[in-house]
Amino acid sequence: MRFDPASLSYDANGLIPCIAQDHRSGEVLMFAWMNRDSLDQTLATGRVTYWSRSRSAFWIKGETSGHIQTLVEMRLDCDRDCLLVLVEQQGPACHTNRQSCFFTALRDGEEVEISQPL
Amino acid sequence: MRFDPASLSYDANGLIPCIAQDHRSGEVLMFAWMNRDSLDQTLATGRVTYWSRSRSAFWIKGETSGHIQTLVEMRLDCDRDCLLVLVEQQGPACHTNRQSCFFTALRDGEEVEISQPL
Repeated sequence: MRFDPASLSYDANGLIPCIAQDHRSGEVLMFAWMNRDSLDQTLATGRVTYWSRSRSAFWIKGETSGHIQTLVEMRLDCDRDCLLVLVEQQGPACHTNRQSCFFTALRDGEEVEISQPL
Repeated sequence: MRFDPASLSYDANGLIPCIAQDHRSGEVLMFAWMNRDSLDQTLATGRVTYWSRSRSAFWIKGETSGHIQTLVEMRLDCDRDCLLVLVEQQGPACHTNRQSCFFTALRDGEEVEISQPL
């Protein structure tokens, strides 16, 4: 079936959640949002482009930092209301310079930092 | 640092997105939402419990299907507005009986089913 971006379920703000995963290691790198335009742009350019809710603007991942995400494959979930992008991540995905944004684990009720800045 | 659930950033509806990942394979299984109470319950019971937005009720994953998720580790992202749960998944995570909800890939503009019901 031909993919139609209009067939996805966007929320009241026209956004759809997106999980970025390293296509080699399987590490979950980050979580952000796309809208219809950033989704189109991601598919057209192969450069993962989110929608920044705080800036109300396109967020071409890595545009300023150089830590770009090249799209390897996009997947949809069963409800068509969440995206998973498998990416080739250049440098760290997190603005704190860590590979993944999920560097804080809860262990025995304590927050534990499980990775360091690169 | 002691973890305080009140320190997380919940959205206007009191919800926080949650990604479930198989702790062994690294496969992203599903995406859902938690609220403060379901988060507390997940940590207290070790059984992953979401908040069903459609039913406005606790959603103890697998309660009716038996396809439970046992919490192995919970992680937070850098902005404290998204959770990642590493889980031991009993049976398929998806209601379609597939291991993961993300069974549709976009390839050359086509939707391709990349896994079958178990």
